[in-house]
Amino acid sequence: MSEIDQMLAANGEWLTEFPGGLPVAPARKVAVVACMDSRMPLFGLLGLAVGDAHVIRNAGGVVTEDTLRSLTISQHLLGTRSVVLVHHTDCGLQKTTDADLADLVERTTGHRPPWTAQAFTDVDADVRESIRLIRSTPYLLSTEVRGTVYDVGTGELREAV
Amino acid sequence: MSEIDQMLAANGEWLTEFPGGLPVAPARKVAVVACMDSRMPLFGLLGLAVGDAHVIRNAGGVVTEDTLRSLTISQHLLGTRSVVLVHHTDCGLQKTTDADLADLVERTTGHRPPWTAQAFTDVDADVRESIRLIRSTPYLLSTEVRGTVYDVGTGELREAV
Repeated sequence: MSEIDQMLAANGEWLTEFPGGLPVAPARKVAVVACMDSRMPLFGLLGLAVGDAHVIRNAGGVVTEDTLRSLTISQHLLGTRSVVLVHHTDCGLQKTTDADLADLVERTTGHRPPWTAQAFTDVDADVRESIRLIRSTPYLLSTEVRGTVYDVGTGELREAV
Repeated sequence: MSEIDQMLAANGEWLTEFPGGLPVAPARKVAVVACMDSRMPLFGLLGLAVGDAHVIRNAGGVVTEDTLRSLTISQHLLGTRSVVLVHHTDCGLQKTTDADLADLVERTTGHRPPWTAQAFTDVDADVRESIRLIRSTPYLLSTEVRGTVYDVGTGELREAV
């Protein structure tokens, strides 16, 4: 059974828990920017209810042009004002370098990607840089921008330092 | 209490459910690309367990350079091969146009954003275009790329047409 067929089948169970229709604007006026890591079910680990927060996720949880596009729509169109970043321990982007990833992709497929992987070594430094990028974007409306690090080994979330 | 303080406090409850440490590579070898909409708790509505799938999310669930960067890392570095797109009804990006959003941001902040919002009208057409972009990226390793539309009013997920 393909992945999508499994998901479509699993949706039947979801219908028994579905909380009903909610407004498009997030109730808690918050946007979460997090890594795509499979071990972070953000609604559970941040105590979010359905409808509470936008969730923006990419490799690393880094701030790219696409992150800023999403945050702008979240804030200007749908009224969020707080931004909470969630990076984590044992990240795939700590296990490579930008050059190594580009080399690997080129060796495997014959094509070198037109972007950099955005690998990093120090997770707290990466959160600080992400906070700086959001705060220095002049067309955003953020009132609170803070960052966290999730420990995938223990389940604990702490504020970045 | 600030949003981040609430989330840090909520994390105590999560620790009672935390399933323990898991490998960094997603167990089901799948990456989900979805909209940031607050009404889509993807683990629940797709029947995903912690550790099953990468989750990439942005405004609209559209395929941008950052989406391709994330998928590349997901596939080349962490072994995923299926991609499942999740767009939805009542999307914020169906309620504006690229020009209207840029005008709104410029009027509010004095700065015009350097990207386009990627607004759309037909959700199925937008899923098809996202599938096309992923399938035509020569440095990806996808074996299955399919798309769905989630109905935020009923909780039902269907394959895009």
